[in-house]
Amino acid sequence: MALVNEHFLKLPNNYLFADIAKKVNAFKVSHSNADLISLGIGDVTQPLCPAVTEAMHKAVDEMADRDTFRGYGPEQGYPFLREAIVKNDFLPRGIHLDPNEIFINDGAKSDTGNIQELVRWDNSIGVTDPIYPVYIDSNVMIGRAGTVNDGKWSNVIYMPCTAENNFVPQIPDRRVDIIYLCYPNNPTGTVISKEELRKWVNYALKNDTLIFYDAAYEAYIQDPDIPHSIYEIKGARKVAIEFHSYSKTAGFTGLRCGYTVVPKDITAGTIDGRERISLHQLWYRRQCTKFNGTSYVSQRAAEATYTPEGKEQVKKTIQYYMTNARIMHETLTRYGLQVFGGENAPYLWVKTPQGESSWRFFERMLYEAHVVCTPGVGFGPSGEGYVRLTAFGLREDCEKAMERLGKWI
Amino acid sequence: MALVNEHFLKLPNNYLFADIAKKVNAFKVSHSNADLISLGIGDVTQPLCPAVTEAMHKAVDEMADRDTFRGYGPEQGYPFLREAIVKNDFLPRGIHLDPNEIFINDGAKSDTGNIQELVRWDNSIGVTDPIYPVYIDSNVMIGRAGTVNDGKWSNVIYMPCTAENNFVPQIPDRRVDIIYLCYPNNPTGTVISKEELRKWVNYALKNDTLIFYDAAYEAYIQDPDIPHSIYEIKGARKVAIEFHSYSKTAGFTGLRCGYTVVPKDITAGTIDGRERISLHQLWYRRQCTKFNGTSYVSQRAAEATYTPEGKEQVKKTIQYYMTNARIMHETLTRYGLQVFGGENAPYLWVKTPQGESSWRFFERMLYEAHVVCTPGVGFGPSGEGYVRLTAFGLREDCEKAMERLGKWI
Repeated sequence: MALVNEHFLKLPNNYLFADIAKKVNAFKVSHSNADLISLGIGDVTQPLCPAVTEAMHKAVDEMADRDTFRGYGPEQGYPFLREAIVKNDFLPRGIHLDPNEIFINDGAKSDTGNIQELVRWDNSIGVTDPIYPVYIDSNVMIGRAGTVNDGKWSNVIYMPCTAENNFVPQIPDRRVDIIYLCYPNNPTGTVISKEELRKWVNYALKNDTLIFYDAAYEAYIQDPDIPHSIYEIKGARKVAIEFHSYSKTAGFTGLRCGYTVVPKDITAGTIDGRERISLHQLWYRRQCTKFNGTSYVSQRAAEATYTPEGKEQVKKTIQYYMTNARIMHETLTRYGLQVFGGENAPYLWVKTPQGESSWRFFERMLYEAHVVCTPGVGFGPSGEGYVRLTAFGLREDCEKAMERLGKWI
Repeated sequence: MALVNEHFLKLPNNYLFADIAKKVNAFKVSHSNADLISLGIGDVTQPLCPAVTEAMHKAVDEMADRDTFRGYGPEQGYPFLREAIVKNDFLPRGIHLDPNEIFINDGAKSDTGNIQELVRWDNSIGVTDPIYPVYIDSNVMIGRAGTVNDGKWSNVIYMPCTAENNFVPQIPDRRVDIIYLCYPNNPTGTVISKEELRKWVNYALKNDTLIFYDAAYEAYIQDPDIPHSIYEIKGARKVAIEFHSYSKTAGFTGLRCGYTVVPKDITAGTIDGRERISLHQLWYRRQCTKFNGTSYVSQRAAEATYTPEGKEQVKKTIQYYMTNARIMHETLTRYGLQVFGGENAPYLWVKTPQGESSWRFFERMLYEAHVVCTPGVGFGPSGEGYVRLTAFGLREDCEKAMERLGKWI
């Protein structure tokens, strides 16, 4: 008799964004004429840039011709893209990677979810709180997170990030096997300094901890002192796996392309303590077995973001979103709200007034101002009392939303 | 201290096709002028058809325009494609599916590897032998396959398919929790009749067994009596999950698109025996957490295979490959070899003469005839003494290879 994986049943019934969609739909049914503006889910609105679409048309033409047709690509991704990544995303920051340390994927969500397959099911995990839900949920599914009580999982160490500690998580006072970090942070939009990041790398080196570092939003960093990659810190090659994505960098949410860096120096132990195993080899084996590469057309699209025109065009779109973020930050602050993030990230993290709950503030904003945000508590217990706003909207929507929020507050 | 998932270490060091590539490369180094023909890996050679590339160009143009740009699609895939699948792949065979029972993916390899996440790690599995290596390897990684001895895994029930039983696997005499079936079969190229398939569905209904049915090659079926889907059998909706792919159907190996059918009737039990859990809901939750949909451009490409022009063009390419298969089958039989498959599938399964081992025959064919095949034993113990040839080559290569094999044998 086939038995279900019961760890799945421990998951809350719905994914955060599905819950929000349901509430928004309920609103729409009773307010069919309302002109709703969404600053909720983190999806982009600007089209792909010309350099990218030209490369895609060319790739499609290649696929139409017997002489240039491409079938299965390497599971790890095409060398042309892996080489462009090493040269453009890392070398200018003084980071030397081997193209074989890059694994092209179909987006950061897949790999941040799959990476935990490489480690024992009973390793302990630590997360900054609030956090992107996939990190914890993918661990719940394998039984690693334990059981849930009051929104907290028994085998997860939470490191609160709130206004009280200026969103700087405290290094745990005990040994944790695996730490998830995401900078610039989703959802808070805050960043980490080199000094703070160095503390984490040193902690990991000392405690034989693995760091899963999500850098999906690094392209939004404006301040030249903020690190774009954990490999800017000495020693990180031995402890950190890093995730990147073209989704937010170049508007690829519908195209599906990203990459994971697994350095060849990174190892984990066996339970008998006798061996160190290369995680690079394990991940390669995992990808060859369960993944067949991402679309050739998407890989050529990603490559085009590194041409001079591509770089210029991508940068322009990021500036567009960051101008949104600036407008939102200034306006909401003027309205007397406490606003965090939004300076090196496309997310603004707003404290609800008078300690109102996240969901209550979300619902009032929806019903009274017709603006959709994301309740902070959906990202973890320390998100209670905050909401997330995204800067990915169209300028005119963004400005209209600010006007409405002004009248409403 | 982070500990490695030790189940990974039980895997043989290399994936079959990586092993072959290594041997082929070694050959090339010592025979730099040899004109090698590969009938080995199952990759297509014909370009995408015009209906598909036109749809792709159109999709790229949509992505270049703010008004038609698409960001994140539904994790389950776009309704336009799921509806086209239900209408074209199932309805004409009398199968009624709800579009919500279709989950678009980035190819069958991912989902045949991931599907086992839904069931307990200690469920028993049964496979026909020889078989596509991903089914077993993905179970090894989670610890379900047990330990390996002489190429056999301790917790896997093998159902031999050889010339002796005419490639008809025997139904197990005991209860097995999960059965993997693949028809038309990779690697043997053989098919299953409705009568035989009915026995499996009845076995599953009686024993509360789950069937993972891989139908990736169904488009190659020529004989009108052979089932294209397990859902042609009454009761299958309660026990079977089915995998499809556009890779071989329409040459999408480089584009990455396929789909999984998870009927709403299918359930698995909890260990206390009190509840039946919907696998449809579980899979939806899994996909929302760990997958972000496949490329919009690839989904529009897949949709185009269902237009009248698309259908005609796809059919023509399949006939091209099946003509290769006919030529190969006739020629090799004339040379006195025992050849199976190749009539309703793009694979030919050839018995090695005088009981030679698969790898020995592979190496002789490589060094003496300069033709690459796949050693049957790479697909499981019962593949020993066979090699697989694919019909996916160019016609001229295929004919030249047959000529060489004639002289060689």
